[in-house]
Amino acid sequence: MTKQQLFENIQRKKSFLCVGLDTDVTKIPEHLFNVSEDPIFDFNKAIIDATADLCVAYKPNLAFYESIGLEGWDILERTVDYIRTNYPDQFIIADAKRGDIGNTSAMYAGAFLGNMEFDAITVAPYMGEDSITPFLTYEDKWVILLALTSNKGAFDFQFMKDAETGERLFEKVLKISQKWGNSDNMMYVVGATKAEMLSDIRAIVPDHFLLVPGVGAQGGSLQEVAKYGMNDSCGLLVNSSRQIIYADDTEKYVDAARTEALKVQQEMEIYLKEKGLI
Amino acid sequence: MTKQQLFENIQRKKSFLCVGLDTDVTKIPEHLFNVSEDPIFDFNKAIIDATADLCVAYKPNLAFYESIGLEGWDILERTVDYIRTNYPDQFIIADAKRGDIGNTSAMYAGAFLGNMEFDAITVAPYMGEDSITPFLTYEDKWVILLALTSNKGAFDFQFMKDAETGERLFEKVLKISQKWGNSDNMMYVVGATKAEMLSDIRAIVPDHFLLVPGVGAQGGSLQEVAKYGMNDSCGLLVNSSRQIIYADDTEKYVDAARTEALKVQQEMEIYLKEKGLI
Repeated sequence: MTKQQLFENIQRKKSFLCVGLDTDVTKIPEHLFNVSEDPIFDFNKAIIDATADLCVAYKPNLAFYESIGLEGWDILERTVDYIRTNYPDQFIIADAKRGDIGNTSAMYAGAFLGNMEFDAITVAPYMGEDSITPFLTYEDKWVILLALTSNKGAFDFQFMKDAETGERLFEKVLKISQKWGNSDNMMYVVGATKAEMLSDIRAIVPDHFLLVPGVGAQGGSLQEVAKYGMNDSCGLLVNSSRQIIYADDTEKYVDAARTEALKVQQEMEIYLKEKGLI
Repeated sequence: MTKQQLFENIQRKKSFLCVGLDTDVTKIPEHLFNVSEDPIFDFNKAIIDATADLCVAYKPNLAFYESIGLEGWDILERTVDYIRTNYPDQFIIADAKRGDIGNTSAMYAGAFLGNMEFDAITVAPYMGEDSITPFLTYEDKWVILLALTSNKGAFDFQFMKDAETGERLFEKVLKISQKWGNSDNMMYVVGATKAEMLSDIRAIVPDHFLLVPGVGAQGGSLQEVAKYGMNDSCGLLVNSSRQIIYADDTEKYVDAARTEALKVQQEMEIYLKEKGLI
């Protein structure tokens, strides 16, 4: 998917919501195990059907699928196929946090952007250029590079200041990585729990899309994210996982998920209007 | 496996070799596709049988298995089971380079250290403490944290100097991570292509085991690694992948792999003797 197509989807749907499919076998409604022989996939399918008109992206979190082994990998593949077939306008992100030496990153790129037809994959920057560039060779596909994450551990290394330039590590990641890709094939992860940092980040990457986790269960404010992070092509994909997909654990989970997604979409519509983008 | 058990295996086998199972469907001997219905697993099995008495660890590189999807995940699981069943003294490393927010890292930990019974997993440090500690809750299991990697991209961020302390990022990773774990549950990845750096690293982590990739195909010298990196319980696992497993691409690949592994083991025996450890 191109940047322009993604922006058009955002305008049409009045939403920059990404629904995180962190599907946890211990958290999905119990009744599903009685009524379905394929409860995890059926849960994903129901959540997707209930939210697809309200969001522009889905983000399966690979850890949750790998944690149940072979069956999980199978469910992941079928979930991506289901979205791709039924909702071709969705941007599908492999939340994988991969990154390794060049020949190994090339294998990961083949797995997720080639075989599995994800649109994008999250990648960690620690190993530098040759761990990232193999993901950039797929046309209209994206690397989403970790810059400033939403967790407490972000403070351990990401704010370290460079003795030479005074830049913090996450700023250095934003700057240096612009030599490898551009705003048509690279996005950045920026946690919503540090929304005020978005001004500093926009000074370095004015045109890039940012994937913003941490709104909802992790406590970030959508209003602040929109205020500090939105640019002329929106430039934001805001992720919500647990708050939507686990809104209810009874037979009403589908309606509850839709209600939560709708709330977020309606709030997003306000910010898109305020910015004059719709 | 405990640190003491690992050291005893090293003494008994006179080897600190880790064989990297970077099994690439495009590189294994072609004849295997004619004689086997399960060529990738059979390749792994043959390589393992040919080298198990010469090495103390195996390191499947997950990218290579994920790149062939569901079948790859199945082969990975069967390979780990095969080693665990037939060579219970082997230390098995998931070369996964994972790392995410706490609840997600806990899922990865469950996948690799729980369900799949790996002894250790490689993890990237960028997201800090809560991305690492979930891996440290499994008894006698290990986190192998990226510190200084063997690739060119290592120079992009890992050598950045802290304005406050003067420490380079990889040194900061070594120091700060010692608050999270210790030399009984944490190792570090240190690339062999920077063997002279091992003195600096040993000054910070004298007692930890180091996993050293980059000997062989990536050009590092085993002699230098042993000189600068060995400690009183050896403290080294040196990985070789391509040089051993792709030593030959004909029917003779098993003998060729054994010959290469034997060469490395014999060189390691010299360094272990020089250090007075055997």
